[in-house]
Amino acid sequence: MDVQARIERALERALSYAAGNNGQPKQLVEAMRYSVFPGGARVRPRLCLAVAYSCGDPAPEASDAAAAAIELLHCASLVHDDMPCFDNADLRRGKPTVHEAFGEPLALLAGDALIVLAFETIARECALVPERIGPLISTLGRSVGMPYGIVAGQAWESEPEIVLEDYHRAKTTALFSCATTAGAIAAGSDPQVWYGVGDELGNAYQVADDLRDAVSTESELGKPIGQDERNCRPNAVSELGIEGALARLVGHVQAAVDAIPPCPGSAQLEQLIKSEAKRLRPKSLAQHAA
Amino acid sequence: MDVQARIERALERALSYAAGNNGQPKQLVEAMRYSVFPGGARVRPRLCLAVAYSCGDPAPEASDAAAAAIELLHCASLVHDDMPCFDNADLRRGKPTVHEAFGEPLALLAGDALIVLAFETIARECALVPERIGPLISTLGRSVGMPYGIVAGQAWESEPEIVLEDYHRAKTTALFSCATTAGAIAAGSDPQVWYGVGDELGNAYQVADDLRDAVSTESELGKPIGQDERNCRPNAVSELGIEGALARLVGHVQAAVDAIPPCPGSAQLEQLIKSEAKRLRPKSLAQHAA
Repeated sequence: MDVQARIERALERALSYAAGNNGQPKQLVEAMRYSVFPGGARVRPRLCLAVAYSCGDPAPEASDAAAAAIELLHCASLVHDDMPCFDNADLRRGKPTVHEAFGEPLALLAGDALIVLAFETIARECALVPERIGPLISTLGRSVGMPYGIVAGQAWESEPEIVLEDYHRAKTTALFSCATTAGAIAAGSDPQVWYGVGDELGNAYQVADDLRDAVSTESELGKPIGQDERNCRPNAVSELGIEGALARLVGHVQAAVDAIPPCPGSAQLEQLIKSEAKRLRPKSLAQHAA
Repeated sequence: MDVQARIERALERALSYAAGNNGQPKQLVEAMRYSVFPGGARVRPRLCLAVAYSCGDPAPEASDAAAAAIELLHCASLVHDDMPCFDNADLRRGKPTVHEAFGEPLALLAGDALIVLAFETIARECALVPERIGPLISTLGRSVGMPYGIVAGQAWESEPEIVLEDYHRAKTTALFSCATTAGAIAAGSDPQVWYGVGDELGNAYQVADDLRDAVSTESELGKPIGQDERNCRPNAVSELGIEGALARLVGHVQAAVDAIPPCPGSAQLEQLIKSEAKRLRPKSLAQHAA
């Protein structure tokens, strides 16, 4: 089965447990599915599975669960981030945001339910490798919770002064380093050697996100642009200019590739990272390609 | 150490990990602490520890973690439930609600962070009994997630027609049955025999909550009253009247006591349930005492 199919199947399986058979509130089931399907690039779960593959992937149900959990947490963060009290965005992946489509109460609850489902999925699917449940829960928790995960990143936006590096590391990078380390844990390997790959790719992704927010069009991204400037949010473009941000992006991608340890899947992983880097570069900056 | 001190210490310990030492957004740390301290009656964690005690409590760090996680999830649900898109309450435990004190963004994030912290706490504290992490995560997840946990209960309020029993079971009862079953799991005992105690006490609590919302004063409760009627929410008082609701409350309390299996701590547990039942009864209905 190819990687994309594994990811979608693992997500379908997780959502099927959340849907229930009887006695459940149906609109929240719909809002959860709407938040997850159809997906974006699924880059974090693909990264997780690529690392698991590089480590031999001896327990595919565990790596599938880790990949699905990471994507569920990512989707939850998008749903809450889009809400009126944060970005107040009306468009995501080319369709109305969850709160636009279902209202604020169900958007808030869909985010909550997806967070819970992520942890439940690990506990449920790792029955054959129960010794990996604790490390996976800890790794996921660290990447989304306080003090250094996604919610911390969001919370920086409420601080009187933002430390740009802490903000970016928490809001974006943490879930990328989680993807690589969780892939290793799920495969029973040492997660530490994989931390740098995710960390550098996450840094690259954050810079690319800043670039796209500054120079892409809404139809290209499927979501509103100019959010950083509108919300006076610090970002790599305002700090370094477009040329400087592009150079930093290229540097982080190379560092991610360089961090791959010697392993059977290294060529495949390098290809994944490079194709992501190409995809992330705004079309209007194609002439700047290194 | 007495039970109340164990609970507060376990919560302090969990929050200390969320607070971090460096590079964390400080206001969210404050909002999380504000959500958890000072607490209410801490009835769910007390119930959890009482069951663990009844089962011999051979791994107190695991039962402390379960008790703390349950209270963190309860606090998270209160923070989100109070927000403008739900109850829009300005008072909780006699002080301004989290969104009143810190703003909506930090209230939403505090709830998210407390949910994540609950699961992390289980993974972190159960290092000596790692085989209990999976069952505890599953039990917690079931009681707060979809399709039958707290978020499902909240989501019923967005449905065109509410099934009262499903609504109450998800919104209130699920975390009570979680408290008793998690106490048993943390102690390495069979959770199933403990399900009924939590389930019946949760039912009693829901009826009591409906009664207090209908007949108590705001100063007695420390939060706004008349919420059910204002939000046209189905409840035991509108369904059964005050006398009928009181009779149902008494019935559930007795059923909870009857469900206690023979064990060393049964007398203590019975006392806890009966004192809770007394505390829950609105003062203005004291003359109805059975």
